[in-house]
Amino acid sequence: MTKSELDAVYRDYIDALNHQAWHELGRFVHEDVRHNGRHIGLSGYREMLEADYRTIPDLQFHIDLLVSDPPYIASRLNFECSPTAEFLGLPVNGRKISFSENVFYEFQAGKIWDVRSVIDKAAIEAQLRS
Amino acid sequence: MTKSELDAVYRDYIDALNHQAWHELGRFVHEDVRHNGRHIGLSGYREMLEADYRTIPDLQFHIDLLVSDPPYIASRLNFECSPTAEFLGLPVNGRKISFSENVFYEFQAGKIWDVRSVIDKAAIEAQLRS
Repeated sequence: MTKSELDAVYRDYIDALNHQAWHELGRFVHEDVRHNGRHIGLSGYREMLEADYRTIPDLQFHIDLLVSDPPYIASRLNFECSPTAEFLGLPVNGRKISFSENVFYEFQAGKIWDVRSVIDKAAIEAQLRS
Repeated sequence: MTKSELDAVYRDYIDALNHQAWHELGRFVHEDVRHNGRHIGLSGYREMLEADYRTIPDLQFHIDLLVSDPPYIASRLNFECSPTAEFLGLPVNGRKISFSENVFYEFQAGKIWDVRSVIDKAAIEAQLRS
C-alpha cells in the first residue's frame, strides 16, 4: 500500500469512528488486532470503542498530525470532550477537557494490526487542578 | 532532506543524548525549538535534558519504532530507568520503572524545531501500584 493509500484508509477509519459506524470497523481493523500489547481482536476493539462512547458521548477524533511510512502510521489526535464520569481514573465528571493522544499503528493486509497509544493524562490532570 | 538522511540525523541525536553530549545538541536542535507548545529555545531544551539526567542518572533513550515522513519524525521511545525522586509528580524514589514516550518531531533546516511528546504516565502509575 502506498503512503497516500494508507493515509486515505486511515482518514476513512477516523471518519467511521466519528460516525460510530461499528459495522464498518472490520474494513479497517484486523481480526487479530493488538492494542498496547494486548491481543484484543476486532470484537474487543469494537467493545473498547463502544465503551469509550458510553463514557464520552461527545467523543470526536481530530487528526492534528499524520506521519505515514507504510506499513506504519503515527497520528497525533486531539480531543475536546466531556467524559461523564471517571476517565483514566480521573474525576472528570462532565467537565470539558482537551487532550492529545500520540498513537502508532502498524498495518497488515491493509488493516490496523498493532496499536501503541499514549494519552496525555498529565494534561488532563493539569486542567482538573486549574 | 530525504527519509534516510532524516532517520540518520535522528539516530545521531538520540546517540548524543545517551552520551550526554550537550555541546553537540546545537547540531540537532534548532535555536527556536518548541516543546509541547512552549517556545523554550536551544538553551531551554538543554536545561530540560540536563534536569532529566539529574533526576534520572541512569536515563537512556531506546528507539522502539521510528516512523519518518520528512519533515516529520514520529518515534516511540522506551525507557527502563530509576528516577531518584519524584517523576511526573509520582513518588518513584529510586524504583526501576519501564515506560514509553510517543513523540513527534518537526524538522526545519535539518534540525528539531517542534516537539510534541506524550509520556505514558498511566503505565508508571500501574507499576507503582503493583
